[in-house]
Amino acid sequence: MDFCQIELSGHIIDSLILPKAMDIIMDMGGDFKVLEFEIGKLKTDISYTKIEVSAKNSKRLNEIIGELSEIGASVSELKNANLVEIKQDKVAPEEFYSTTNHLTFVYVDNKWLEVENIEMDCMIVVEPQNKIAYCKPINYLVKGDKIVVGYDGIKTVPPERSRGKQGFFEFMNSEVSSEKPLMSTIDDIAKQIKEIKDNNGKILLVGGPAIAHTGSAPLVAQLIREGYIDVLFAGNALATHDIENALYGTSLGICTENGWAVSRGHRHHIKAINEINKHGSISSAVENGALKKGIMYECVKNNVPYVLAGSIRDDGPLPDVITDVIKAQDEMRKYAQSVDMVIMVATMLHSIATGNILPSRVKTICIDVNPATVTKLADRGTAQAKGIVTDVGAFLPLLYEKLLELK
Amino acid sequence: MDFCQIELSGHIIDSLILPKAMDIIMDMGGDFKVLEFEIGKLKTDISYTKIEVSAKNSKRLNEIIGELSEIGASVSELKNANLVEIKQDKVAPEEFYSTTNHLTFVYVDNKWLEVENIEMDCMIVVEPQNKIAYCKPINYLVKGDKIVVGYDGIKTVPPERSRGKQGFFEFMNSEVSSEKPLMSTIDDIAKQIKEIKDNNGKILLVGGPAIAHTGSAPLVAQLIREGYIDVLFAGNALATHDIENALYGTSLGICTENGWAVSRGHRHHIKAINEINKHGSISSAVENGALKKGIMYECVKNNVPYVLAGSIRDDGPLPDVITDVIKAQDEMRKYAQSVDMVIMVATMLHSIATGNILPSRVKTICIDVNPATVTKLADRGTAQAKGIVTDVGAFLPLLYEKLLELK
Amino acid sequence: MDFCQIELSGHIIDSLILPKAMDIIMDMGGDFKVLEFEIGKLKTDISYTKIEVSAKNSKRLNEIIGELSEIGASVSELKNANLVEIKQDKVAPEEFYSTTNHLTFVYVDNKWLEVENIEMDCMIVVEPQNKIAYCKPINYLVKGDKIVVGYDGIKTVPPERSRGKQGFFEFMNSEVSSEKPLMSTIDDIAKQIKEIKDNNGKILLVGGPAIAHTGSAPLVAQLIREGYIDVLFAGNALATHDIENALYGTSLGICTENGWAVSRGHRHHIKAINEINKHGSISSAVENGALKKGIMYECVKNNVPYVLAGSIRDDGPLPDVITDVIKAQDEMRKYAQSVDMVIMVATMLHSIATGNILPSRVKTICIDVNPATVTKLADRGTAQAKGIVTDVGAFLPLLYEKLLELK
Amino acid sequence: MDFCQIELSGHIIDSLILPKAMDIIMDMGGDFKVLEFEIGKLKTDISYTKIEVSAKNSKRLNEIIGELSEIGASVSELKNANLVEIKQDKVAPEEFYSTTNHLTFVYVDNKWLEVENIEMDCMIVVEPQNKIAYCKPINYLVKGDKIVVGYDGIKTVPPERSRGKQGFFEFMNSEVSSEKPLMSTIDDIAKQIKEIKDNNGKILLVGGPAIAHTGSAPLVAQLIREGYIDVLFAGNALATHDIENALYGTSLGICTENGWAVSRGHRHHIKAINEINKHGSISSAVENGALKKGIMYECVKNNVPYVLAGSIRDDGPLPDVITDVIKAQDEMRKYAQSVDMVIMVATMLHSIATGNILPSRVKTICIDVNPATVTKLADRGTAQAKGIVTDVGAFLPLLYEKLLELK
Repeated sequence: MDFCQIELSGHIIDSLILPKAMDIIMDMGGDFKVLEFEIGKLKTDISYTKIEVSAKNSKRLNEIIGELSEIGASVSELKNANLVEIKQDKVAPEEFYSTTNHLTFVYVDNKWLEVENIEMDCMIVVEPQNKIAYCKPINYLVKGDKIVVGYDGIKTVPPERSRGKQGFFEFMNSEVSSEKPLMSTIDDIAKQIKEIKDNNGKILLVGGPAIAHTGSAPLVAQLIREGYIDVLFAGNALATHDIENALYGTSLGICTENGWAVSRGHRHHIKAINEINKHGSISSAVENGALKKGIMYECVKNNVPYVLAGSIRDDGPLPDVITDVIKAQDEMRKYAQSVDMVIMVATMLHSIATGNILPSRVKTICIDVNPATVTKLADRGTAQAKGIVTDVGAFLPLLYEKLLELK
Repeated sequence: MDFCQIELSGHIIDSLILPKAMDIIMDMGGDFKVLEFEIGKLKTDISYTKIEVSAKNSKRLNEIIGELSEIGASVSELKNANLVEIKQDKVAPEEFYSTTNHLTFVYVDNKWLEVENIEMDCMIVVEPQNKIAYCKPINYLVKGDKIVVGYDGIKTVPPERSRGKQGFFEFMNSEVSSEKPLMSTIDDIAKQIKEIKDNNGKILLVGGPAIAHTGSAPLVAQLIREGYIDVLFAGNALATHDIENALYGTSLGICTENGWAVSRGHRHHIKAINEINKHGSISSAVENGALKKGIMYECVKNNVPYVLAGSIRDDGPLPDVITDVIKAQDEMRKYAQSVDMVIMVATMLHSIATGNILPSRVKTICIDVNPATVTKLADRGTAQAKGIVTDVGAFLPLLYEKLLELK
Repeated sequence: MDFCQIELSGHIIDSLILPKAMDIIMDMGGDFKVLEFEIGKLKTDISYTKIEVSAKNSKRLNEIIGELSEIGASVSELKNANLVEIKQDKVAPEEFYSTTNHLTFVYVDNKWLEVENIEMDCMIVVEPQNKIAYCKPINYLVKGDKIVVGYDGIKTVPPERSRGKQGFFEFMNSEVSSEKPLMSTIDDIAKQIKEIKDNNGKILLVGGPAIAHTGSAPLVAQLIREGYIDVLFAGNALATHDIENALYGTSLGICTENGWAVSRGHRHHIKAINEINKHGSISSAVENGALKKGIMYECVKNNVPYVLAGSIRDDGPLPDVITDVIKAQDEMRKYAQSVDMVIMVATMLHSIATGNILPSRVKTICIDVNPATVTKLADRGTAQAKGIVTDVGAFLPLLYEKLLELK
Repeated sequence: MDFCQIELSGHIIDSLILPKAMDIIMDMGGDFKVLEFEIGKLKTDISYTKIEVSAKNSKRLNEIIGELSEIGASVSELKNANLVEIKQDKVAPEEFYSTTNHLTFVYVDNKWLEVENIEMDCMIVVEPQNKIAYCKPINYLVKGDKIVVGYDGIKTVPPERSRGKQGFFEFMNSEVSSEKPLMSTIDDIAKQIKEIKDNNGKILLVGGPAIAHTGSAPLVAQLIREGYIDVLFAGNALATHDIENALYGTSLGICTENGWAVSRGHRHHIKAINEINKHGSISSAVENGALKKGIMYECVKNNVPYVLAGSIRDDGPLPDVITDVIKAQDEMRKYAQSVDMVIMVATMLHSIATGNILPSRVKTICIDVNPATVTKLADRGTAQAKGIVTDVGAFLPLLYEKLLELK
């Protein structure tokens, strides 16, 4: 039998942190005694509790503490984090601490360090001499790195549910359904976008090829031209079909104006790649006057950076596509920490990939006609994502109209 | 071994009638010899073929002829249809002819009679003395009715694929996908609606409660007020939530303006029913000034007839709901034969029910976020239905805008 | 400004009742002060809290109290419920109390009465002289009924989350996903079924026609024969296609053995109805030896009652179908209160209809390949339903195997 | 105005080739005259037709001929294919011929050459001196390659619909629905698998991580051990979760035996990667005794080659994953031409990627709970794919049982 005291503070009841903590302890076969409990008397007050957790042995106790630490509990008796040096590249000791996507602190030499570049499923590397700590994906570990093991000296701060201020991120619950008043949801998103842009915030668009197929590429191009989008993550498909549309008026050979199949249209996406190959890159094609409109054109013209990540279903791909997926991830990481909002449109692959590297503090909206995309995104840890089950071909025109109204 | 000659004429190749006929013969173990074949030399020409069909025995031959007759083949040697008198209410002889939803003729006393009120899965009742033939659902058969058995003297005329004239019903293939240029589809539908209304045609709207949940009830109300809708089929749910929305601004307790759950809102749909109960009917509530807007209000005000069919999941229901489903079907039948277009919005139950009683000549559009609704509709015989996989909450505003533009 | 004290007790933290209460108060613009708080020190202890709720006026306070009462809060100062006499059939006073599906008590003449036949969206009728209280759907109200208005003297008891005892209903969370270990889920369900049957509990099967289409009718027939099913709710479609399958080996004309379309198979469901019409009812057809196997056959042979509820998409229907949906609901109500478990298979319509009349205490499983069915069921108040997103054609054979293993 | 004669022969009516040809000509604004027509008199006879196609100018005529050539029409007056030399790496002349996935011949120096390694969306490179022709993806073109432009001298042979021989690939039509008799479908697939294996044919499995999540990894491992699978295409996710399951009994931290979340389980997939990193590769881990069961283990033990293709959502990835997607495609190409059947299980990404490089002659089954996967696969050209909408977690156990029965 082993014991330990933990503390929880904040809006721990209405943010469900205390119930979750009790769940964890009991589900894992532990036991608890509430030692202190000060409930916030008023709704603005925070609550505080000290709980004694017990388990049959110290191994199990540690496991429980591990889980609790991820929802924001901290061990009362403050200990420095345990650091272990990596002996072999890419190989961590068994007990490595695996990060969440929440704001995280690590206690080193009796000081709390904020973990930089936080993203889920990584190790925490500490440089005690430099007083810094940061995330590293497992395959970037090199011999000599000092990483955190176990749960001592770790504190995470999940985003608190805000309240009282109306708006999209307040009212949307996790339910994924198409039976919602769509127009008011779009209204809220438009207001959020405007607020972020008014404050010089940054918005990342993650888009799939359905944007082009549904004929919405010109609208997204306009959003970029008007400064709503600060960075674009996509794949070869969106870029190719956008360029196909700009050059030949089709997407996958279907005319985006009238929905008819076009003669020999199935060659068009290869022709589009061929055209860009001629110039060596999308930006050269723009400079040479070969590409004159569309999403990619506007990105080039407006200095909006884009990351085109390769996938095994790519034709071509375009010369700008990063075919090594790990390099593509790293390129995406350059932007993920600094954006304020992510809008994911009709792409399960890129949405989950982006979700993987996003801190939980970033507002995340996922628009897809398939409820499963949103469900999977949340199941894989991007719990902050708000899902809107709707048709991209209808969502984008309606969003654009709302943004116009707000101007 | 038994033989028989059949004839096919029309655009039998590009309408796939000839290939289907060959399929049927071969799949059913028959054999064929092409006796005559005149292919339309030019694209405007029709083709003609006479084929000798053979099968191991006359039973099998009859089965083959039966299938062929449903795709428009007629037996060369013209015979009068076989009529058998019903001996017991609701009970037909084994070999009853079961109707399709295509234009159908029956040869009686050496004359072709058009079958009136054609709908699928019915019997053909003939009154030889009155020289009329019409459809009857099985449970309406009464002793003494003369119905058609077997396949002699039956001719069906499936709708031909038109061609060369651009428009929604020409280009949409049966594929059900959300990856289509939605705006051009909506454009085409709007043009079709305008064309039908310009020619004094009639449009039937079949709607589900998602119209109210997504906040689109005011738009549909406006479509009715402006004369686009001539008859409405719905259930208790759409009517109740539309009235709930008109009275309390909510649908299932969710504010349709801002998507928030409203205090005690889950009582609202019962309150709405309670309110109508007070007045005895929707129209009385309108007359008494208790109901002042919304879909049902506009129906009453603009003399647009509606059929509210009951379902076992109904609360209440409203006094206007026809709780006996067979009576509801009959009420629906009063309108089904005379409309030119049906727009089905977000209701699998009512869409399939309407499809069941529609002649195949009626243009049918089915809008649903769930591809399965459209697939099932077609699987159950309403093959003329064109499906649009999109979000109702987005589709209706966009359609309404297009209609405004066309005015 | 108005005040009121409420009390909560039980596992109010880990059952999320306290967090929900705080949510409600704050979301509705109220305020609270925690007056007393005794947290369960040990995991088996229950907690207790007394909270002072305040709001800007008594109307708003009442609304808040109303919401709180539905999650199990009771007003500290015990008052008798307010009873109002109905003046007009089917019409309730504005402030009627609308039931939840939770165990409910009403305080009348200083005594708690349990509300009988509890189901959601009903009124509570009290007969003070007889000391009974029971649910009535709105349209059953008759002049002179005394019903509860407002929230005084009402106490609801939502089912508590049990814990520590392994099993299906413990581990399944509300997430609806097809990415779950299906076999272990099936295992758990089989064990639950066995346990219920070992204790002479009753199981209700709610089934859609996909049972027949997927070729699973013989398996369900076997489950009935072996005593696993005590009552069946279905529609005309399941019964017709089951009988079609028993008589002709097809479902909607598709051979259920090999999946091939059968010649003239589209007549089969009408033929099946015709055959039953001949005998006047399903049970007569069984007695006369015309129907010799299948789900409906086994129901008749094993005295398993069935309710076949009509729907507007019905062909026929069979003589046993109750075409008036309100009568069908009442017939279903006869069984809904006394079953221990409901298994809903591939039918959104009948599942929601059944959910509407079920007390929340009844274990409810909903199996559907479409996640939306489960989502909608929960959205409409049947929150106890556990969803399994899987293919019926695969689920039933696997469940049957598990049940065999457990015998 | 320009003219040209084309010929069609084979089962051109019931294989829909003639109707499609007429469609193409008319949809593209051309005209036709039927010059000769010999319809197969008996069902075993083939038909032949010679048609004069005309169009307003030679550009349009060529476009029409281009489309016709893809469905198997050949220009009557035989011309050699036009070859053009590539002037810049990766850049083709505008009029490049883009391949289909059908068996293709090219007429060079008055001889028909079969195009090797046929796959869709490629160029045809001809080496006239070596009398060979083969496919090249656009980005592999190098200066000096001679590729085919225009449509002269090209003949494609789409797979004919077989008939009369019962079996899965005969009866399944393109409709994607979960309302099918699943057991008979599984039966057919099992027989096809057995037949292929009895003839020493090769089967490719393309699998997604849902195989592991649903607890089916041990079954797939068994299929590999018993020789049913000859090559595996997957991603990092399937391999990682399979190894996670082998080492820790979980998939994404969920116990695959009982569906419970496991303490600190979200670390498990990283731990699994860590463990393999320690050994440097999956095969080393197997050799060193660290990995003792599961899909990947059986692949190593039974010399079943696997291609693990990277994706941007990968954690890690495992050292065996090919992170450059173009290299991964090439690795997949090594197997795609030589397999007889492909079974795609629960992965849209890998299924479409594999479909892209498969010749249309390869039997292809796609199993997914989401109908959209199958729809998209067909929309992107893999028209031979037969879809089964079912739950992987149920499908695999049932398929395995059927295979056992057939042994």
